[in-house]
Amino acid sequence: MENNSSIALLVSYATKGGDGPHSYKQNSSIQRGIIEAARKLTQDSIAENFDPKTLSGSSPIPICIADLGCSAGPNTYFAVQHIIEAIEFQYQSHGLPVPEFQVFFNDQFPNDFNTLFGNFPLKRNYFAAGVPGSFYGRLFPKESICFFHSSSALHSISEVPKEITEKTSAAWNKGRIHYANAPKEVFGAYANQYQKDMEAFLHCRAQELVGNGLMVLQIPTIPDEILDPNVYAGKDFELLGSCLVDMAKVGLVTEEKVDSFNLPIFHSTAKDLKEIFEKNDDFIIEKMEAIGSPNLFPEDVHIMIKHWRAGLQGLIESHFGEGIVDELFDRFTKKVVESPEIVKETMQGLVVLFVLLKRKPHDA
Amino acid sequence: MENNSSIALLVSYATKGGDGPHSYKQNSSIQRGIIEAARKLTQDSIAENFDPKTLSGSSPIPICIADLGCSAGPNTYFAVQHIIEAIEFQYQSHGLPVPEFQVFFNDQFPNDFNTLFGNFPLKRNYFAAGVPGSFYGRLFPKESICFFHSSSALHSISEVPKEITEKTSAAWNKGRIHYANAPKEVFGAYANQYQKDMEAFLHCRAQELVGNGLMVLQIPTIPDEILDPNVYAGKDFELLGSCLVDMAKVGLVTEEKVDSFNLPIFHSTAKDLKEIFEKNDDFIIEKMEAIGSPNLFPEDVHIMIKHWRAGLQGLIESHFGEGIVDELFDRFTKKVVESPEIVKETMQGLVVLFVLLKRKPHDA
Repeated sequence: MENNSSIALLVSYATKGGDGPHSYKQNSSIQRGIIEAARKLTQDSIAENFDPKTLSGSSPIPICIADLGCSAGPNTYFAVQHIIEAIEFQYQSHGLPVPEFQVFFNDQFPNDFNTLFGNFPLKRNYFAAGVPGSFYGRLFPKESICFFHSSSALHSISEVPKEITEKTSAAWNKGRIHYANAPKEVFGAYANQYQKDMEAFLHCRAQELVGNGLMVLQIPTIPDEILDPNVYAGKDFELLGSCLVDMAKVGLVTEEKVDSFNLPIFHSTAKDLKEIFEKNDDFIIEKMEAIGSPNLFPEDVHIMIKHWRAGLQGLIESHFGEGIVDELFDRFTKKVVESPEIVKETMQGLVVLFVLLKRKPHDA
Repeated sequence: MENNSSIALLVSYATKGGDGPHSYKQNSSIQRGIIEAARKLTQDSIAENFDPKTLSGSSPIPICIADLGCSAGPNTYFAVQHIIEAIEFQYQSHGLPVPEFQVFFNDQFPNDFNTLFGNFPLKRNYFAAGVPGSFYGRLFPKESICFFHSSSALHSISEVPKEITEKTSAAWNKGRIHYANAPKEVFGAYANQYQKDMEAFLHCRAQELVGNGLMVLQIPTIPDEILDPNVYAGKDFELLGSCLVDMAKVGLVTEEKVDSFNLPIFHSTAKDLKEIFEKNDDFIIEKMEAIGSPNLFPEDVHIMIKHWRAGLQGLIESHFGEGIVDELFDRFTKKVVESPEIVKETMQGLVVLFVLLKRKPHDA
């Protein structure tokens, strides 16, 4: 049974901004690999499902596209370009004039929008806007978006479940930073939060998407066969958590700080996600298949660690302050170098799911 | 005859980001005063001219509003709130349901969008997006905006005219950073650039605005009576330029650097602006009147200097690097303290023009 350590790499929540050596921008080749791997699926999805003549809504022209959880670039630019190419082709093949495009780049506020805007492709055939905010709430006016895209972002949860930080709760997650190897109550609290969040996500997007509009999601998941995700999943988080516990023991951080820190990350299975999608009345599941493959991942331990750091640094700093990150990742690096099999497990445990949902016509 | 020194304070190009002591955010009370002074005019303009029933275009719902040259906040939030209140009232008074609002906050790229997004009002009744880019080019899809607003921004020009930095040109602006007290060729080059820019501005907005959509502009200008703006205007820029020349003399900057630095700022008269508007076929001038008043300006020299610095620091740093700003403003402060009348001249020379333009129906 594999674990899903790899998925730690795919955090888009508060990734490290700027373009320095620890930035997401310099350490996001895995996410880029996923976007490349999904390119054909995305473009085929548009060819088969994006019909300019059936798009409904109050503003079908211009074509508005939103990338949710875009981070600070550059991956989002590639994803958007793939989508626009395919939609343009749809108009051309229908003998229709190609419309103007407006692209909304969304991520949670601590995202570095200055870096995102500063690196826009010089040549681009769309109007661009940045939209700060959580995609678990409303971000856009009703029926204003024709196409949603989200890659490597929908495994973040909107908040850490309260009960896991409450000392009196059965789900109190003392001495850990995730549900990996935690009591089943901790896993349950995370799973509940994830389900609530995904339902809210679908509800918001259903209002914002025009009738017959599309949503392409690339979601890091764990294999359906994993029976005890709280035992097998998240070995990397467990290792990182153990470094924080070590640091608390020598007084570099307080025990309370470690106990109150939990990663807002959950990895569902395809099976559970499908159930959530099927419960929703507004979308049709047009496609759902795995695109994850081990060769998306670098074998070099140090490159992997840079990805982990770029993905998690923002979260760690916002809880512990800026002082501890170097020390923490020095310790983490030592442990990973001592147990390099974690990288292989990482490579084998990932299933990136490609999902295509179509909005049913409104008021139908 | 008054000069228009004050207008240096109203630069929105590359204002100092963040929220530190030198930031635009902390030093923009004058611009706030202008927005407050324009509030009633803006809301009356909407009451008299914004008719939900005659708005045309491909996407009249939701109501999309754009603030051009928004800087890093907070003034833009107040301006937007005034506009939305007045538009909501129009719907209510017509017995129509109040639509959703989407607000686009625009400024040139070096603007600090992270600060802008981080200080959004917690309670707001609109969807927000940031749009980086020059408003002298296209920023939005065709007929997608119902209301444009721009306050204290339309006196920046898109670029410094090339001829004023060419040694062989009659308009070479050696030893100065502006057209203040420069040969008439320098002023002419600036004036040409301004006219081209304003024409491009109107042409772009005409495409983006829906039929019967409105544009409210608050533009810093100089009084029509000024016959020789290159003699009387910009005494503050002249003084600042003299500090740079002094620094070049003692080797703190090179003479070449000073000669190649020119402020991309031009102050038109109401008369000249009216001519530009009248030449444009897409807009009707609904209102044009002065709102500038001396009491918009603080009398304290040091507060004024902070405003100058917040407005100009970004421009100076992008040309000279970050090292010289403290020294330059120490020298500038000394000169202003020695000649405090510049502050009074500043207060008396300003005419902020309120302009309301209405887009004619498209294809009419």
